[in-house]
Amino acid sequence: MTSMQDAAPGRPDARADVARTATGSPRWIVAIDVGGSGSRLVAARLERDPDTDLAATPDAHRTSLTGRPVAIGPDGSDVADVVHDLGAAFVTAWTETHGEPPVVAAAAVGATGVATLVPDPTAVHDALRASLGAERTAVAADAVTAHLGALSGRAGAVVAVGTGTIALGTDLHEIWQRVDGWGHLLGDLGSASWIGAHGLRAALAAHDRRSTGGSRPLLAAATARFGPAPTWPAQLYTRPDRAQVLGSFTPDVAAAAAAGDPAAVQILTEAGRHLAESLAAALVPGLPPLAAATGGVLAAGPSLTGALTRRFAALRPDAELVPSAGTPLDGALHLARLLAESTGSTGDPGGTEGTAALVAHEPWLSLGGPHPDPAPATGTSTSSAPRTDSHPDSHPAPITGDPT
Amino acid sequence: MTSMQDAAPGRPDARADVARTATGSPRWIVAIDVGGSGSRLVAARLERDPDTDLAATPDAHRTSLTGRPVAIGPDGSDVADVVHDLGAAFVTAWTETHGEPPVVAAAAVGATGVATLVPDPTAVHDALRASLGAERTAVAADAVTAHLGALSGRAGAVVAVGTGTIALGTDLHEIWQRVDGWGHLLGDLGSASWIGAHGLRAALAAHDRRSTGGSRPLLAAATARFGPAPTWPAQLYTRPDRAQVLGSFTPDVAAAAAAGDPAAVQILTEAGRHLAESLAAALVPGLPPLAAATGGVLAAGPSLTGALTRRFAALRPDAELVPSAGTPLDGALHLARLLAESTGSTGDPGGTEGTAALVAHEPWLSLGGPHPDPAPATGTSTSSAPRTDSHPDSHPAPITGDPT
Repeated sequence: MTSMQDAAPGRPDARADVARTATGSPRWIVAIDVGGSGSRLVAARLERDPDTDLAATPDAHRTSLTGRPVAIGPDGSDVADVVHDLGAAFVTAWTETHGEPPVVAAAAVGATGVATLVPDPTAVHDALRASLGAERTAVAADAVTAHLGALSGRAGAVVAVGTGTIALGTDLHEIWQRVDGWGHLLGDLGSASWIGAHGLRAALAAHDRRSTGGSRPLLAAATARFGPAPTWPAQLYTRPDRAQVLGSFTPDVAAAAAAGDPAAVQILTEAGRHLAESLAAALVPGLPPLAAATGGVLAAGPSLTGALTRRFAALRPDAELVPSAGTPLDGALHLARLLAESTGSTGDPGGTEGTAALVAHEPWLSLGGPHPDPAPATGTSTSSAPRTDSHPDSHPAPITGDPT
Repeated sequence: MTSMQDAAPGRPDARADVARTATGSPRWIVAIDVGGSGSRLVAARLERDPDTDLAATPDAHRTSLTGRPVAIGPDGSDVADVVHDLGAAFVTAWTETHGEPPVVAAAAVGATGVATLVPDPTAVHDALRASLGAERTAVAADAVTAHLGALSGRAGAVVAVGTGTIALGTDLHEIWQRVDGWGHLLGDLGSASWIGAHGLRAALAAHDRRSTGGSRPLLAAATARFGPAPTWPAQLYTRPDRAQVLGSFTPDVAAAAAAGDPAAVQILTEAGRHLAESLAAALVPGLPPLAAATGGVLAAGPSLTGALTRRFAALRPDAELVPSAGTPLDGALHLARLLAESTGSTGDPGGTEGTAALVAHEPWLSLGGPHPDPAPATGTSTSSAPRTDSHPDSHPAPITGDPT
């Protein structure tokens, strides 16, 4: 199912002419974040309005859309299909509202598993061009867009904590230092799957009446969520999405910790320490001493964040641990803007002005376009023109955004 | 592939008449152990020879056979098929050598996953009757046969450590206390899969240059076994037998510990502590203070066994931790003997003499037979007569055992 979110109304902007095409339409940038629990698209005006306080009205000049999560099949992940469907739904809704398709200067995707499970990013670039007609495209690992969102494009290290954990230290040019991201059996230390698995082990230690490590509150919570303990193995080991199932118990661990359960507090404390060690390991020489953590798991409570902060300070007393400035979707939008601005405002498809700001580094980041045939066309998957056919699961509603 | 092992020649036994059938043939008991890495069959003379020192000649009066491991399919495990094939191969080889099928008074199976993955033990009982013509049958979880083998049928607690870990405290009548056995994601603490997973995490911590937990020797060993670290997730997460893959690294952890690697020593020490806690938790009130540990993982080294012994002594200073007296296959043979002797030597199919020694307790232990139709028949899976068709993979060699 695809659902639409109304964007806040924008204001007409007389200075937008610099970003207008020959026909006078303003140009847009599009960002897509594709994850294991859903996908999100946001579009924003390419031109910035210096008189507008974007921090105070973050949704001005924006429209957004949500779509289905990525699925892992025999051929790897279907990121390209998700991207195409979300882009096409956006263009369809836009066109119904405005009477013409949007002009997309650049589009960027941050996707889970890009570094490991998408064998060839070309299909994702093609999907961006085919569905959005984007002139320039970027396909990045979600670790990269998390980094861009958390540090607003500054060099440093970021640890992204969701179902899994991955830390990336990068300057987006020469240094690309990955730490963890090994999956729930080999690593993903401090992630939701890690916390949930440790919570369930503490529940079973109580069930088994082991002398150490048991938690009656966690056993009660897990029984409420999953049923009697003897049924858990059959529920878990038959599922392909074991890491997500494990991660689904993390809110219960957070609640138990908030209520003072020592075992739950201990799990969150260890998770925070692991995250700090991943972050410190990613902050390699050559990077400025700047770091951030991002992801919903950080909301698990002060046991986790406190341990993360203390351990990181002990490991890197010289470094600054800053609050995350934004989400991976913000990071993808940042990437799309860098991409659009790297061509300057002249629309020169071969222009090199500003390109030093963005350098491809596969498998982390690949860049595409301008397309050799920028003329609108329809009906082929390699077309650079917007396609208005949407996925059968897409039910776009009219966009009430900034029509300029 | 099925291979035959020559049994040591036995000696004719004049006292065996008590165990002979009406036709004068000695009666036999058969035990089968079905596991994730293979299956084993052993047959022994029902009658004991008081003049024979069985401890000095453990293979006297025995024949043995090895077969394929159990496989887990959409309908659960194929224990019944493995049992039937191994039993049929035994009968075929026996009949070729002796000119007549063996007379099997009782047969017992200990199988992995019986308590969780075999929906109905009836099929396994049927397989024992159909392939061996066994008069009485027992189907037990491998935790039960491990217990019987390790403690020779005495009440107490036993922790069995293979790819997984399960502890069972039982008197084989009223008390059946299970601890752990939750699988590699939820438990199996101290098992081969647990040790291997922790070893690989230590290897990756070194690869990632984390500040703690890393082991260069384990990284070198894991790279030698699995190739470069970035390839490990794709190798592991695509396999259905992840626990076995993880467990396959345990010998490398043991070798690193033997060479003094602190991380490997620490992993084995924690494994030993976990095993001691499982064992202590299984030794519930009502059981005599008697315990043992069994399984190949105990060969991982003194770091593990020392920690196990020390931690168990601290938890249960009143209890005796004895060396394991035998294997799960020995335990299955013990079970078959109990079963045969529970009917006395009269052959009375409805006899209750001695049955107090053995009480069914599903899913741990189920008992079958005597079959309502003991007349030989062939061609149906519910036949009680020996079937001489063997599995295509079976290539039995002549048995050179005790033909009496």
